[in-house]
Amino acid sequence: MTYVSPTGEFTRDQRYIATRITADGSDGYPAEPGRYRLVVSRACPWASRVVIVRRLLGLEPVLSMAVAGPTHDERSWTFDLDPGGRDPVLGIERLRDAYLARFPDYDRGITVPAIVDVSTGQVVTNDYAPMTLDLSTQWRAYHRPGAPDLYPESLRGEIDQVNAVVFEDVNDGVYQCGFAGGQEAYEEAYDRLFARLDWLADRLARRRYLVGDTITEADVRLFTTLVRFDAVYHGHFKCNREKLTEMPVLWAYARDLFQTPGFGDTVDFDHIKRHYYEVHRDINPTGIVPAGPDLSGWLTPHGREAMGGRPFGAGCEPGPLSDAEAVPAGHTPLRAAA
Amino acid sequence: MTYVSPTGEFTRDQRYIATRITADGSDGYPAEPGRYRLVVSRACPWASRVVIVRRLLGLEPVLSMAVAGPTHDERSWTFDLDPGGRDPVLGIERLRDAYLARFPDYDRGITVPAIVDVSTGQVVTNDYAPMTLDLSTQWRAYHRPGAPDLYPESLRGEIDQVNAVVFEDVNDGVYQCGFAGGQEAYEEAYDRLFARLDWLADRLARRRYLVGDTITEADVRLFTTLVRFDAVYHGHFKCNREKLTEMPVLWAYARDLFQTPGFGDTVDFDHIKRHYYEVHRDINPTGIVPAGPDLSGWLTPHGREAMGGRPFGAGCEPGPLSDAEAVPAGHTPLRAAA
Repeated sequence: MTYVSPTGEFTRDQRYIATRITADGSDGYPAEPGRYRLVVSRACPWASRVVIVRRLLGLEPVLSMAVAGPTHDERSWTFDLDPGGRDPVLGIERLRDAYLARFPDYDRGITVPAIVDVSTGQVVTNDYAPMTLDLSTQWRAYHRPGAPDLYPESLRGEIDQVNAVVFEDVNDGVYQCGFAGGQEAYEEAYDRLFARLDWLADRLARRRYLVGDTITEADVRLFTTLVRFDAVYHGHFKCNREKLTEMPVLWAYARDLFQTPGFGDTVDFDHIKRHYYEVHRDINPTGIVPAGPDLSGWLTPHGREAMGGRPFGAGCEPGPLSDAEAVPAGHTPLRAAA
Repeated sequence: MTYVSPTGEFTRDQRYIATRITADGSDGYPAEPGRYRLVVSRACPWASRVVIVRRLLGLEPVLSMAVAGPTHDERSWTFDLDPGGRDPVLGIERLRDAYLARFPDYDRGITVPAIVDVSTGQVVTNDYAPMTLDLSTQWRAYHRPGAPDLYPESLRGEIDQVNAVVFEDVNDGVYQCGFAGGQEAYEEAYDRLFARLDWLADRLARRRYLVGDTITEADVRLFTTLVRFDAVYHGHFKCNREKLTEMPVLWAYARDLFQTPGFGDTVDFDHIKRHYYEVHRDINPTGIVPAGPDLSGWLTPHGREAMGGRPFGAGCEPGPLSDAEAVPAGHTPLRAAA
């Protein structure tokens, strides 16, 4: 899936299964209630985008979700959190089985997020970038009443532009720091990351959200990196000019989103930390998971309501999470361990 | 020198060469101007204590100093910063040679700080704990005019008590976190470290210095850990409940000392970071050195003058560093790179 080039840069393999689930079923997979199962890990930032968007749009009743355990071996994500170690809907132990069911010779990475066709057990797509956009545009018939428009037509150009630089310098930039094969490649990625964070802080000092005056896809994509910043990227990936908590504008922006239903309530800090620190033995050979950071700051007032903006536009926030999808107490500052 | 026990705790080998240099020469080594050479690394917190105390007491003219390079291999600290890779006074390439000159079968760690008898080339002692106390008490005849009393007789009981808990939970505590052999041992050390830092913050909220109203040995010993905290211990050793910059009392206390002549002007952040990150390949296999943290905060106002206290008691601060002993520009926020 990923490799370090001879000059030391980390390069993400971006060849994904390009099949799309669409309103008109043009790829053979129409958007349809109950037909598919979304497979995620709460550790993974790319999967977490989909978890957030699914919840903001209220797609839970029509698109069920399987949560893989936070750690995995070479042979892929497993359903070790489920009774008997099997996903109760797909009946498989490893996500890999759904990939091989469709492509017996599949030799690329077994990645989350993935969407599986329940009746055949075959993976449909693992292409995370269009996946969230398609939930916004192709599943519109199934959105909840009051769902926000996360990808409004009039703003798509600007959202796409912001997403492109945020992807290269921030979402993927932290990985380019952490998996750099040498000092020079690391420092180049580090400089680019923090220059981009400065640029974002400057933009967000003047407006509550990245594009327009409501939450959009652009905010979802930045949030999933920011929420992991101090817990893993700062130390584990050496993104340590400052912590997020030391960048006042971005820290307030991230708290604002965290405290918005659909964002923070989907975040499992235990899964996040265990995944990065236990799986990446090449950069953390002991597998020891840091006990910090202190997470209580996520719940402190952020003061950004004063900037105006309408989080959900003409819509409203989603209702509370179902018990089945709630993040366990102790894994989130929203539900302290008893 | 150090090992991880079967239960996973990191245990420091505390068997050092116990010979002392004393005023009366009772161990055969009298305090004497020009006779000895102090060997340090600016990376090492134990050696940095001696660098600070020597300067506060103004012992530079009578006790010369060799600075080893920040990194080393299995065979010990080397003088690779010096022309030809040899210490110009001792004429050796490796500190190890001075150890073997006295103990041909020496099989313990080759550590800094060490004091070498120049005429014989033999190491006298590497026992860092009494070393600074002896500079205060046994070299008194050679202290500069206005030197502080860092170990006043009336306060020794309290200083020793503070030093004992600071050593166990903080100075060595960060190593117990970083070199723990397992999750449980790490978490035990982490809890003890931060509980002790909370205790210290509580104490220092009410008084400018740790013991009495002047700088003492106790402050020197706490400072050398605090100054390394965000640069290495927070990420590399997983001491990450908060950064020092997020602990307001300790951060102000550390800046107060850093801005006091004799403290910050001896600190080489480049040596500190390169040592820990390049040498400890067992916990940082890539050897990549983080570009952060931003060090400019060390120079910001700390406001602790308002608490009173007399930094140097009846004495005065040391004069400027000689050019020969100045930390290179770019290695310290005190002298920004041109």
